[in-house]
Amino acid sequence: MKIALDAMGGDYAPREILLGAVQAKRAVDVDLILVGKRAVIEQGLAEIQAAEKLEFEIVDAPDVVHFDENPSSVKERRGASIRVMCELVKEGRANACLTMGHTGAGIISSLITFGRIGEVLRPCVGLPYYGLQPHTFLTDSGAIVDCKPEYLLQFARMGAIYVEKIWGIARPTVGLMTNGREDNKGNELTRAAFALLKASDLNFIGNVEGYDLPNGTANVIVTDGLWGNIAVKVTESLSEQLLRRLQKRFADAGLSDAVDPILQEFFEMMDYEHIGAAPVLGVDGLILIGHGRSRAAAVVGGIKSTRYAVQVDLLGALRAGLGEGRVVQT
Amino acid sequence: MKIALDAMGGDYAPREILLGAVQAKRAVDVDLILVGKRAVIEQGLAEIQAAEKLEFEIVDAPDVVHFDENPSSVKERRGASIRVMCELVKEGRANACLTMGHTGAGIISSLITFGRIGEVLRPCVGLPYYGLQPHTFLTDSGAIVDCKPEYLLQFARMGAIYVEKIWGIARPTVGLMTNGREDNKGNELTRAAFALLKASDLNFIGNVEGYDLPNGTANVIVTDGLWGNIAVKVTESLSEQLLRRLQKRFADAGLSDAVDPILQEFFEMMDYEHIGAAPVLGVDGLILIGHGRSRAAAVVGGIKSTRYAVQVDLLGALRAGLGEGRVVQT
Repeated sequence: MKIALDAMGGDYAPREILLGAVQAKRAVDVDLILVGKRAVIEQGLAEIQAAEKLEFEIVDAPDVVHFDENPSSVKERRGASIRVMCELVKEGRANACLTMGHTGAGIISSLITFGRIGEVLRPCVGLPYYGLQPHTFLTDSGAIVDCKPEYLLQFARMGAIYVEKIWGIARPTVGLMTNGREDNKGNELTRAAFALLKASDLNFIGNVEGYDLPNGTANVIVTDGLWGNIAVKVTESLSEQLLRRLQKRFADAGLSDAVDPILQEFFEMMDYEHIGAAPVLGVDGLILIGHGRSRAAAVVGGIKSTRYAVQVDLLGALRAGLGEGRVVQT
Repeated sequence: MKIALDAMGGDYAPREILLGAVQAKRAVDVDLILVGKRAVIEQGLAEIQAAEKLEFEIVDAPDVVHFDENPSSVKERRGASIRVMCELVKEGRANACLTMGHTGAGIISSLITFGRIGEVLRPCVGLPYYGLQPHTFLTDSGAIVDCKPEYLLQFARMGAIYVEKIWGIARPTVGLMTNGREDNKGNELTRAAFALLKASDLNFIGNVEGYDLPNGTANVIVTDGLWGNIAVKVTESLSEQLLRRLQKRFADAGLSDAVDPILQEFFEMMDYEHIGAAPVLGVDGLILIGHGRSRAAAVVGGIKSTRYAVQVDLLGALRAGLGEGRVVQT
């Protein structure tokens, strides 16, 4: 299996990306194609690898999209690493691609390169909520920040396909994230989406609220990309802060030896680095996107998640589930 | 000091509300006026108080707004407990009022009864993020789910007045919650609000993201009422779940005796019941609203928070800060 990795994307690129690539290459059976400025990658690898030589294919890409740039600019930038990475998948030279770079640019690159599946209006990023609820799936976790009700219906459907095909849960429950469980809760967008979901053939259980995400009330929880992103980041940050604060308090009480191994289990459980990246659902090719702040461990996690998506044929499941115009059928 | 308490509002009303009133009356120096169906309140009190007799004033209100009802219906329902409660404040018979009932109905009741301060377009609910960041203030945490950019600017200003006057922090920092820290992040709403905040005289530090809420990056974090509500509820639920899971794991390892007192500190710290309720900012009268799922302990917390808001003259601070049309001045 070959995975194209954007060596230039991320707050700590290229160093942490390359470090992650080296660690993944040692731990996982996967071929990695490093995409970016060849000279930078070669020098970065030389610095990291020390004595040991690992084999990577390098594909040169002269341009990089930075986080403060307009993601639409990627349309005109065929030489950007995030575009070249997608192109390798399109050409069949890689099975999937992965970036820790600009989410918007990743989405647009994948749309331009792969096109959409069936009648998908907008793609979304789908993320297992992991940690406390590894089998709750959140869509959209950051792709589309300005949504229409129809998009949310499609996000729900794509999430349900993921959960059904990949996790083997039949007729997964779908909840719509709002400010309360009553049918009349939510804003203009969610109230309209509620009507569409209610009329659909999905196993829609109605509105859910913030409590329901860590409680695993629904298999699929639907939000727009802005709230989904906020919910995920609050979760990551809060878990980390709370566990650190506990660890310090236990240390002050002289309890570190007894409790640290157990706290470590929880740090591990809540650590997004195991997931590392989330698939873009709805585009006709396999691309995963991770957090900009990813360091090497998250890159390893992202490579594993990408490998898993290829192994379980996530794209095939979406093509089958979204085929024949079923996307917006109600 | 007199506080009017909606005895009929909340998932566990009237029993838990009355239980909270009895507990608060024993613990805090406050006079409570119980508002609701007199016969129900009298019977409820008789069941709870057993031998001990506490003195409560009861004001009859024949009607109750339930959670699944349209909040606008409160406009026509002068006999609803949530309306009568506000009326007592308006008439000067109570210093402030408190409900665990329908948030929307509480907002509308307070708007009808008190009117707005200065040029406030929409009120908001302001909530200290407590727990890990007791001095980060979140506005709006649940009042207005369909927002315009101008509302967010005003929420920011009202939050800054709260933090400056009540917590004594000069020139509080203000962050706008989006999906990333870069200036170009966010959706249509937040991008327009960003421009307004940037042009204002507030100490605006730019966009913040989900990580920043538990990290205390800004004194005031501005969101619309939908995301704010989701962020607060994710926080409450996640903290509780995580601490419970830890407690069980420590118990399985035979460590309960050593760790439980410390875990208990953290349960306490993260428990919203200490706050219990949050003030509606921007209406010309003092009303606090708590979670629908409040039980007695949260009612006690809400009564304490309401008492505190009276003591520090929150309303006076808002009137002074929002006076003379300063609200939308940029």
